[in-house]
Amino acid sequence: MNVSILGGGAWGTTLAQTLTDNGNLVVIRDINKEFVEKINVEHVHPFFGMSIPSSIRATLDLKETLDFSDVVVLCVPTKAMRMVLKECNKELTKPTLFINVSKGIEPETSLRVSEIVEEEIDEKNLMGYVALSGPSHAEEVILRKATALVAASKNEALACKVQALFSNEKYMRVYTSDDVIGVEAGGAMKNAIAIVSGVASGMGLGENARAMLITRGIKEILSIVLALGGKMETVYGLSGIGDLIVTASSLNSRNFQCGLKIGRGMTVEEAMGSIVQSVEGVRAIHAGHEIGIKYNLELPIIDEAFKVVEGKLSAKEALHNLLSRSLKTEKYW
Amino acid sequence: MNVSILGGGAWGTTLAQTLTDNGNLVVIRDINKEFVEKINVEHVHPFFGMSIPSSIRATLDLKETLDFSDVVVLCVPTKAMRMVLKECNKELTKPTLFINVSKGIEPETSLRVSEIVEEEIDEKNLMGYVALSGPSHAEEVILRKATALVAASKNEALACKVQALFSNEKYMRVYTSDDVIGVEAGGAMKNAIAIVSGVASGMGLGENARAMLITRGIKEILSIVLALGGKMETVYGLSGIGDLIVTASSLNSRNFQCGLKIGRGMTVEEAMGSIVQSVEGVRAIHAGHEIGIKYNLELPIIDEAFKVVEGKLSAKEALHNLLSRSLKTEKYW
Repeated sequence: MNVSILGGGAWGTTLAQTLTDNGNLVVIRDINKEFVEKINVEHVHPFFGMSIPSSIRATLDLKETLDFSDVVVLCVPTKAMRMVLKECNKELTKPTLFINVSKGIEPETSLRVSEIVEEEIDEKNLMGYVALSGPSHAEEVILRKATALVAASKNEALACKVQALFSNEKYMRVYTSDDVIGVEAGGAMKNAIAIVSGVASGMGLGENARAMLITRGIKEILSIVLALGGKMETVYGLSGIGDLIVTASSLNSRNFQCGLKIGRGMTVEEAMGSIVQSVEGVRAIHAGHEIGIKYNLELPIIDEAFKVVEGKLSAKEALHNLLSRSLKTEKYW
Repeated sequence: MNVSILGGGAWGTTLAQTLTDNGNLVVIRDINKEFVEKINVEHVHPFFGMSIPSSIRATLDLKETLDFSDVVVLCVPTKAMRMVLKECNKELTKPTLFINVSKGIEPETSLRVSEIVEEEIDEKNLMGYVALSGPSHAEEVILRKATALVAASKNEALACKVQALFSNEKYMRVYTSDDVIGVEAGGAMKNAIAIVSGVASGMGLGENARAMLITRGIKEILSIVLALGGKMETVYGLSGIGDLIVTASSLNSRNFQCGLKIGRGMTVEEAMGSIVQSVEGVRAIHAGHEIGIKYNLELPIIDEAFKVVEGKLSAKEALHNLLSRSLKTEKYW
């Protein structure tokens, strides 16, 4: 099958290799000329530098990419998503399947990518939408190390199509789901807890504290996902707790790194400024806090994190507040 | 309050410090003369070597320990638990609260500690039973790093009593629960998945695979816990997923280490022989496999792990089997 990928970043180019491994033809569109040349001429991954299959082609031309296939993988940062989708809608000439692999929510609006797609892509151009997510450092998938993802769509047949497209018996296993909200909201909110986990590590706390923050944090993500209409099983699946586990303890994670720097004493602005790629988690903390107010949810970890990123509280004071809350049963917050 | 601790190992002596920090008087009983002297004369932790409060007293005398308090913390390996409880029952002269902090199930019988207590302690000697569990490397708690635990009992008042006994605002937060089965069975089975995670790391797989095995593995633990009469919320709480997170990725975990060595090519016997303290996870894999047969559960990870520890399959073949299963929705196995 022909597949188009929008965004030749670390994850986009890595997925191009997986799709090629599975016998598909792939064209990547990127706005960075240097990336395009690295892929087309040197046949190397623009971020990691290692060889990639020479059949992967890259282009600067959006129209060419969209004409190449009716399956488009969205692999651009959430903040650029609406702009890219607007451009796509102008160029599209046929119903297209959009597979989104970027995690996060739109700044300002707090919308999920499926909502932006619905707003920006005309019905005649939209075959359907699938969110593909899960615990997946690109650094490992490019080396073909075993990984599992979840493909969520309201349309079961399309979820199965994406499952078949990406799965192989060597290193990639994809599960299907019908819970787009759960996959998208859980995947975005996990970045908030990853920052918190990084802050704790930066303060010198250990694995016990990290497990505590992940376990109690996933309960807050669950509250948010349920309030938005998602399902519990998704939060405790690959795109929720699974992705949180790799994000909340790995130096490969930009969100964890950002937290680490805050925990060691940097301001939020300094920490974010020191990381080249986009850090989605700070926005997720804001969004989680807002959703908590809107739906009257008890979110102690996210609320304390909000005070820290707003500069109203030190990380140490936030930890003290969390530990000195009245004692509870495990069911409640 | 006076508290007795049976077993002056790494965790027992660490909890003695926490109880002392909280204003209690503690006596530890151990059968190792050297440990007793280290605590009484040098006032150091027998495993970690650092100073501990000088008010902590140790003794070889079981009767003296039981007479000292009607609150007894059980901190001995599961395989020695029945013998210790038999001795206790002979010496007890008053109703006593048993708090179990050891994780695992009895070899041969696959019984949980609460079941062994019921079998071995006469009703007149038994005030009640609380299981205290959660993500807690002793190496961190001894340094007073933030940690959260769960205290589970059928008797709510006793669970609250243990919560108050161990909690403090500085570094220890205890939640209560009424689900003894969930805490005990989840705490035991997580060691099985920790070994699997170690095997994967030993084979050179990465964080993606680990997150996949933890996320899909916790679903198998959930099946087992539900079959035994425990609750889902417990499996997704501190004693389940929380403890699994720290156990399945830390060199501080004996079970993870054991798996690591198997993944690198050692036989199960060699790997277990090379680790000084007890490795509960291999027994947990056997028990999980047996429970799966008894209740007709689908447990692909535990069943493949069973074949590996039985020497019937290499770790590589087991991974291939897991990755080449027919594709599923995330709900199902």
